[in-house]
Amino acid sequence: MKACVLYSGGKDSSLMGLTLKRLGFDVELITANFGVYNSFIPASLSAKALGLPHSVLNLDKSILQHAVNMILEDGFPNEGIKYIHNEVIEAAALKYPIVADGTRRDDKTPKLNRDQIQSLEARKNIQYINLDSFGFKTINTLVSSLFDVKKEKSNKDNSSDYEVEIRLLIDQMGGNSSELFPEHYQTNVVGLKG
Amino acid sequence: MKACVLYSGGKDSSLMGLTLKRLGFDVELITANFGVYNSFIPASLSAKALGLPHSVLNLDKSILQHAVNMILEDGFPNEGIKYIHNEVIEAAALKYPIVADGTRRDDKTPKLNRDQIQSLEARKNIQYINLDSFGFKTINTLVSSLFDVKKEKSNKDNSSDYEVEIRLLIDQMGGNSSELFPEHYQTNVVGLKG
Repeated sequence: MKACVLYSGGKDSSLMGLTLKRLGFDVELITANFGVYNSFIPASLSAKALGLPHSVLNLDKSILQHAVNMILEDGFPNEGIKYIHNEVIEAAALKYPIVADGTRRDDKTPKLNRDQIQSLEARKNIQYINLDSFGFKTINTLVSSLFDVKKEKSNKDNSSDYEVEIRLLIDQMGGNSSELFPEHYQTNVVGLKG
Repeated sequence: MKACVLYSGGKDSSLMGLTLKRLGFDVELITANFGVYNSFIPASLSAKALGLPHSVLNLDKSILQHAVNMILEDGFPNEGIKYIHNEVIEAAALKYPIVADGTRRDDKTPKLNRDQIQSLEARKNIQYINLDSFGFKTINTLVSSLFDVKKEKSNKDNSSDYEVEIRLLIDQMGGNSSELFPEHYQTNVVGLKG
């Protein structure tokens, strides 16, 4: 059965993709894009390293704009990113019978809670899967045994996170996105071990 | 890395075992026994069908006795079964660095909540894994694509659930366990597809 995984090229969504593949699903990795920047390229390279098909889910820029407005109003990015993630899941649910993402048991945001999952599955008649089975220690154990990764300072050309297009849009609007997003490290999957 | 799965031979714990195996863990399926009846035999046969090692986790009868007392006092089995499941997890956590079970996102009991999981992992310095990633529809999809199963009316010789020893102990004490446990169907994994 076909299952899509919302995919950034990072370790969590890569683990989700590989798990579903090994359980026999026909996995397609998808990365949302809002037309501001081709930020899906790092994800497409990681997908290739995993040997899994990858495609871009093109969504309307108005979603990104709304998230940016929220972030500028809030002064921090969490709610805006959560909004985008929910919109991406809803859009994916129109195209795939199974929608998965790499959110983990210990994640706070973006993450669907149990009620949101039940609502999504019922409204869209789909199945939703995440990494709630695993805590962060287990994720780390699995990632280090399964993947070769590359860790470097995050920038607009090595990340496929929502953050890339959010920041570019904020900066295009005359804002200063580096005040809202601290510098951080980015871990991308570059190969499969064994 | 070694991981044990609390194992009944049913579809949920079988899916947990196979998932961890396919992710590269050194999986050992374990079935708790309290010395009242050799109820682990159906589980050991299912484990063999999966090609995974199986062992019995022998625990003190006093745990079962305490659960039976709770069940008789409550007039229904949920809390007693939850008590047993927690005790089994605690015992397994003394022997294995990773403890997994087949509880699902939609299960109510026996099931650890998020706080109990965090407490367990911290107190015992272990990793705990369950099937929270998946809803019941996905479990059904996976089970039908992965396993051959046999479904029949549950009895003491085709089930390795905690219920078997609970019922026998209640009946040995002069009670009538069939008033507390409704007749139900039992699904055991008897083979691996493909």
